[in-house]
Amino acid sequence: MNLDTLLEKNLNDCRTYILKGKVASYIPELEKVDCEKFGICLYTGKATHCAGDWNIPFTMQSIIKPIILLLALQDVGIENIRKLVGIEATGKPFDAFNYSDQALKSEHINPMVNAGAIALCTLIKGDTYSNKFNRILKFVQDLTGNSALGIDEKVYLSEQKTGNKNRALAYMLNAYGMIDEDVENLTDFYFRCCSIKATCKDLAHIAYILAKHENKGIVSAEDARYVNAIMMTSGMYDGSGEFALNVGIPAKSGVGGGIMAVVPNRFGIGVYSPALDNKGNSLAGRKLLECLSKQFNWSIF
Amino acid sequence: MNLDTLLEKNLNDCRTYILKGKVASYIPELEKVDCEKFGICLYTGKATHCAGDWNIPFTMQSIIKPIILLLALQDVGIENIRKLVGIEATGKPFDAFNYSDQALKSEHINPMVNAGAIALCTLIKGDTYSNKFNRILKFVQDLTGNSALGIDEKVYLSEQKTGNKNRALAYMLNAYGMIDEDVENLTDFYFRCCSIKATCKDLAHIAYILAKHENKGIVSAEDARYVNAIMMTSGMYDGSGEFALNVGIPAKSGVGGGIMAVVPNRFGIGVYSPALDNKGNSLAGRKLLECLSKQFNWSIF
Amino acid sequence: MNLDTLLEKNLNDCRTYILKGKVASYIPELEKVDCEKFGICLYTGKATHCAGDWNIPFTMQSIIKPIILLLALQDVGIENIRKLVGIEATGKPFDAFNYSDQALKSEHINPMVNAGAIALCTLIKGDTYSNKFNRILKFVQDLTGNSALGIDEKVYLSEQKTGNKNRALAYMLNAYGMIDEDVENLTDFYFRCCSIKATCKDLAHIAYILAKHENKGIVSAEDARYVNAIMMTSGMYDGSGEFALNVGIPAKSGVGGGIMAVVPNRFGIGVYSPALDNKGNSLAGRKLLECLSKQFNWSIF
Amino acid sequence: MNLDTLLEKNLNDCRTYILKGKVASYIPELEKVDCEKFGICLYTGKATHCAGDWNIPFTMQSIIKPIILLLALQDVGIENIRKLVGIEATGKPFDAFNYSDQALKSEHINPMVNAGAIALCTLIKGDTYSNKFNRILKFVQDLTGNSALGIDEKVYLSEQKTGNKNRALAYMLNAYGMIDEDVENLTDFYFRCCSIKATCKDLAHIAYILAKHENKGIVSAEDARYVNAIMMTSGMYDGSGEFALNVGIPAKSGVGGGIMAVVPNRFGIGVYSPALDNKGNSLAGRKLLECLSKQFNWSIF
Repeated sequence: MNLDTLLEKNLNDCRTYILKGKVASYIPELEKVDCEKFGICLYTGKATHCAGDWNIPFTMQSIIKPIILLLALQDVGIENIRKLVGIEATGKPFDAFNYSDQALKSEHINPMVNAGAIALCTLIKGDTYSNKFNRILKFVQDLTGNSALGIDEKVYLSEQKTGNKNRALAYMLNAYGMIDEDVENLTDFYFRCCSIKATCKDLAHIAYILAKHENKGIVSAEDARYVNAIMMTSGMYDGSGEFALNVGIPAKSGVGGGIMAVVPNRFGIGVYSPALDNKGNSLAGRKLLECLSKQFNWSIF
Repeated sequence: MNLDTLLEKNLNDCRTYILKGKVASYIPELEKVDCEKFGICLYTGKATHCAGDWNIPFTMQSIIKPIILLLALQDVGIENIRKLVGIEATGKPFDAFNYSDQALKSEHINPMVNAGAIALCTLIKGDTYSNKFNRILKFVQDLTGNSALGIDEKVYLSEQKTGNKNRALAYMLNAYGMIDEDVENLTDFYFRCCSIKATCKDLAHIAYILAKHENKGIVSAEDARYVNAIMMTSGMYDGSGEFALNVGIPAKSGVGGGIMAVVPNRFGIGVYSPALDNKGNSLAGRKLLECLSKQFNWSIF
Repeated sequence: MNLDTLLEKNLNDCRTYILKGKVASYIPELEKVDCEKFGICLYTGKATHCAGDWNIPFTMQSIIKPIILLLALQDVGIENIRKLVGIEATGKPFDAFNYSDQALKSEHINPMVNAGAIALCTLIKGDTYSNKFNRILKFVQDLTGNSALGIDEKVYLSEQKTGNKNRALAYMLNAYGMIDEDVENLTDFYFRCCSIKATCKDLAHIAYILAKHENKGIVSAEDARYVNAIMMTSGMYDGSGEFALNVGIPAKSGVGGGIMAVVPNRFGIGVYSPALDNKGNSLAGRKLLECLSKQFNWSIF
Repeated sequence: MNLDTLLEKNLNDCRTYILKGKVASYIPELEKVDCEKFGICLYTGKATHCAGDWNIPFTMQSIIKPIILLLALQDVGIENIRKLVGIEATGKPFDAFNYSDQALKSEHINPMVNAGAIALCTLIKGDTYSNKFNRILKFVQDLTGNSALGIDEKVYLSEQKTGNKNRALAYMLNAYGMIDEDVENLTDFYFRCCSIKATCKDLAHIAYILAKHENKGIVSAEDARYVNAIMMTSGMYDGSGEFALNVGIPAKSGVGGGIMAVVPNRFGIGVYSPALDNKGNSLAGRKLLECLSKQFNWSIF
């Protein structure tokens, strides 16, 4: 069997997990997706291997977090980023108030959880949040090689309407002096970033750049390693340890149902299945990666 | 010595504590107060006994919390209040995110901490927040018998400018479905309530009503007991246990430097000294009440 | 109707709450009690008013906590006690690890929660824990005027067998340098204290001494106030706020089903009903006190 | 320059970090070590490359944790382990009470923190703790190929004397029904495991087995991956994220000053320098691995 056939086979074998997951409901518009959609794309630089609904666009949601980190690394450098956010896993869900004993410290948040990602948004260069957004959209277009990428307006408006927890996090960051921003502008920017639509193929292309450290004009090897390392320890929220054990590669999930996974030095992968596990990760997507990793020895451990 | 002379003497004895406290700095406008001001007023229904700067107005700040609770009790009744907020001491500072294991429950907040007081503001009747504010201002005027009471515009604007933690709390309440309100309108109302100016004499008059349960047209005995009980267990923030031990009467402090204290069945007291202890309570004010309570056996224990 | 008849009537009215409670199960021997037993005793110094099973002995459990505090106050004084334990409500259950951000501080525990009571045991004078126990047993006998008081051996052995959480708390106190004790000896002492048997009448006699501050040979007025104040804010665990609101008097409950309640300056009360609410307080006992407090205006607020 | 010379050079360059660290003091005997000792050993299966004090034995301390996990995996299998402990990073220090909202759940602890490692000790096969210990000591001897390995009696006795936090954790595990063990026997076993002495060379040999998955008679590839994955996300305590970013390989540190590091598919490393950073990891050891990883591209990201 060739790789495309094997991807198809594994995808079909994992379909059963779709029913055990649950589509995200806290953003009402996300609930409307077709939870039967299931796709994968693997990009090796030379070839593209796909199966299922690899060409259906979905909102990136938290998969934008490593991209925000990458652009911030380019814009202001590691030192400035580390002044604002930490690097350690929080041991808590993605939307937690990582706050204890009446203190909020940069070391308690990281770029892979909401509070950290929102904080990083303030470091993206741009006179206005409109300019900042144009820059990050352009960056995603460059990373994917897909200049047609844009946002899902309905999801964006839905997030904006229901994003009170993110507003609470942003005001908390302000209150503790970590940022000094207009919360409406800041969260609007963040909601727009989360609403950028991509396909499995788009994610595979980004992941490939992170895997190969080749296209240094876009992403330096050092920055790619930063992102891969933090995806390894925190990319799947408080399911990162389980993922490290069962799949063994850096990855980032989004509540839209996507997973972007990096097989270092080898290739990039995008997966999509919108029904989530109780940690907020695509359930069937995670299981598919698990099966493939075991068959093809993708684990880096 | 008569009571006025004794108040004067004790007040002078406690002046030394002023230097050990610190004026609240998180609302910049509050820092500008004259921290040497120190006053007390005791109202027995028949007589008014005063000493020091009893006639200097200061912003009520958290002393408005029991008033918000009283008006909410009248407006919607105990059951509706208990659906929204709890009654137990939180064991944490007044501005804490009383939040644990990713849950925010009504039983984790109470009307004497910021999150609970902000939640209660939504229960005050009124078509608009402007009407709600007129009602609560009128209520404070009725309780004090002082129809000239109004707000300190500078402090109000300063709170509004720096009140990000309260906005974060309000968005958190929204995010957890406990309230469903426009946060800017809600916090603006809360900031205005906190900025109402009163003197020691005004506070003594409110406390008298809570102590005597007589003027039932204004406050019912049942509502007064509710407020006295919760002030006993939570009125001095996470210094309430210490205050119960050393003074032994229900009281509510504000970061403006005021303390409103109730000697049940006997009289009401207002104290003012803006330098605070590390829990956010007026330090010299607390010490003055301690000295007087011991001399005159005010403790209800 | 005279008071005894009224007590009887209220007790019968409150019997219905027995079924809504649940006998403590974490100490297996406690589960064997007859949950239908329900009694009350009120002691005014001149007269004793009783109803129901006021003469059935039960283990004091946490009701020993204020007694440990009283004896420690006499043995080492307030300053030494305050070096070891705090005074504020913890906002958490009685058996909590009151521990945050990797720190355990005296201010985070108090004499009414297990960690604080266990810490206080180390302050009781006595060469050996056997001597310490003889002293506290004698003290309870003096407070109750009942020289026949002793421990329930079966409950004591059951507690000793299952008291791992208390051992964990004691080791934690040792690990944080708050105490320096042999944990087996210390917890054995604590388990024996908790297993002292008393009746409603015994509790009413202790409470009377706390209420009247008269028998200063046994308890000084100052120490009685300390205990009453801390029972008010923390005596009913994380149900203390509710109790302050609905009953309005200092009280201490035990998971054995007893409640000792103090009506300051007036009289002492003992109640017994072993089925507990979800906070660990006697449910029917609490409701009975609520009914009586409302009828007879016992609330100190 | 050959590799041995390069190791020597890097080791000397990193000596400056020794002064910035601090030898562990909570186990008194550990404080007596010579903090100038600094060594490294790298084992490729074919060759051994060493520098500095690579042949000085030190106590393994937490480096025994992955060994306990390996033996438990062999003894009872993954399913039984996962019933008892989780896999996620806790976001907290190694000795934390990973406890929240009055609950202790297996998912809140993992084999790389004290509570989890102590829990796993109960799964090691053996009629007595003496037999269990003989089995784990033999296992370490097999993994290192060093049959002379034994424990440091003084450190063991010192740990036993001061290990109250571990006793507290063990009683907590008992209290929450996660284990059902005699705490003294259990912690004694754990203290003995932590006191096993090894050199950098010994650690390099263990790490080699984890890296190459070759000697399947000793460790299966599946078990090695489990251990490597969890060392990646949690092996350096709450400094694991930083280590993933800067070094990029699975590793486990001990407060004795050792670090065992695995370069998957390539080789194993042992490092020793007893002065620790504020997370409890060898500071100079960590920096040395960082320098070498950057020069030789060891990062798996």
